[in-house]
Amino acid sequence: MVQSVRRAASILRELATAGPRLGVTELAERVGAAKPTVHALLRTLEAEGLVEQDAETGKYRLGPSLLLLGNAYLDTHELRTRSVTWADGLAARTGEAVWVAVLTVDHVLVVHHAFRPEGAVQILEVGASIPWSTCALGKAIVAAGPIADQERLLAGELPVLTGTSLADREQLAAQLEQVRRVGYAVEDQESTLGDAGIAAPVFDRSGHVVGAIGIVGPVERLLVEPARQEHAVMVRETARNLSRDLGATRTSHRRGA
Amino acid sequence: MVQSVRRAASILRELATAGPRLGVTELAERVGAAKPTVHALLRTLEAEGLVEQDAETGKYRLGPSLLLLGNAYLDTHELRTRSVTWADGLAARTGEAVWVAVLTVDHVLVVHHAFRPEGAVQILEVGASIPWSTCALGKAIVAAGPIADQERLLAGELPVLTGTSLADREQLAAQLEQVRRVGYAVEDQESTLGDAGIAAPVFDRSGHVVGAIGIVGPVERLLVEPARQEHAVMVRETARNLSRDLGATRTSHRRGA
Repeated sequence: MVQSVRRAASILRELATAGPRLGVTELAERVGAAKPTVHALLRTLEAEGLVEQDAETGKYRLGPSLLLLGNAYLDTHELRTRSVTWADGLAARTGEAVWVAVLTVDHVLVVHHAFRPEGAVQILEVGASIPWSTCALGKAIVAAGPIADQERLLAGELPVLTGTSLADREQLAAQLEQVRRVGYAVEDQESTLGDAGIAAPVFDRSGHVVGAIGIVGPVERLLVEPARQEHAVMVRETARNLSRDLGATRTSHRRGA
Repeated sequence: MVQSVRRAASILRELATAGPRLGVTELAERVGAAKPTVHALLRTLEAEGLVEQDAETGKYRLGPSLLLLGNAYLDTHELRTRSVTWADGLAARTGEAVWVAVLTVDHVLVVHHAFRPEGAVQILEVGASIPWSTCALGKAIVAAGPIADQERLLAGELPVLTGTSLADREQLAAQLEQVRRVGYAVEDQESTLGDAGIAAPVFDRSGHVVGAIGIVGPVERLLVEPARQEHAVMVRETARNLSRDLGATRTSHRRGA
């Protein structure tokens, strides 16, 4: 590991989470390095457009190159680029919003969002980050992933965001087993009150799970029968088609070792 | 400057521009460093989620943390957060799409996009990057900025994207002078055939230009009289209100030294 690069990454993380603007002294305390070191890192990050210095206060904030790099991440992400047509199709068939997500550490990250065909103003949720255990997308990815990853995630923090968030490891493990059996995962208001989700895992040509695709919407529309069953079939079918598009074969939709 | 951080930033830039997936050898050639050095940088960037390694090919691509950081840049960007309401209002009054942009090196970067109230499917252009001299937003920012920056930009590359792109420095300088006089800039199909734009500069409390706000749309709707004059007045008024919101005083709307 290269220490100065780790520290530079910590500076960016602090500016993203701790506050929009921090001074050299505050940053030095937060990343645990000497002020001259942090100052040199900041000057380098500034030259690369990764941070900006406020002319008036001398404090630092995130820089515009991050937006360019974030967009390049989306543009070059195969799951995302391949999912656009499938997501539009699923939104049209179900009448609901569709999200495509990947797992990053213990959160899912939304990389594509197809608006629902009808309805009021909708906010684009690309870039949203949600604890894996509280949403259908996260449960779909983890259930289809390697046992070792699943055990690590079950042993980690399980945030309680609503009254129905699952914080019981055994209950959650049983739910993941169920997800593997039926091929899709369900969220019943576990991340947001009133909202539900149905998602299925997506695989690549090597048979590894690379993300999930699913619908999100009001629990009254998504989880009442017979809509719930019909939605689940459409979500699973779309995930399978998207996987084929990514090179997965029928038999490669296997759980990692 | 910290060399390893510069090299790490170069790796990210290469992955964003040169190709979605590059191997260690290709990256070492591109950033001009030894393979073991590049390998250590990649392992560090991977631990931070800034790059990902493809399981099958061993090649590297951009990582999900960049999307999180890009979103944090937008969320913590004062011009952007303050502009949301003003942009919606301008879109409603003009019936056109509204963009808010900042200058980064010699391109404008779109940080906010309010869709036009009516119309077909629209693509969100946040993160789009356009040569400054080919769009109204860029000309508005540069005309309101320090003379030194303007001279440097006029001496730099002036890309020709369409038949009306201005590549003549004197003509462009005269147009910037005109922008300063009337308080808004116009694009007549200089970046995209058929599209026009009208934009005005936005200032902060210290009186420095921090970006621009403007409308974009078909040249037939934007630049025919009397619509053109009416649009220009609304754009300039919105830019002034947004500047006030950022703390600018009437007298601080001055050109930097």
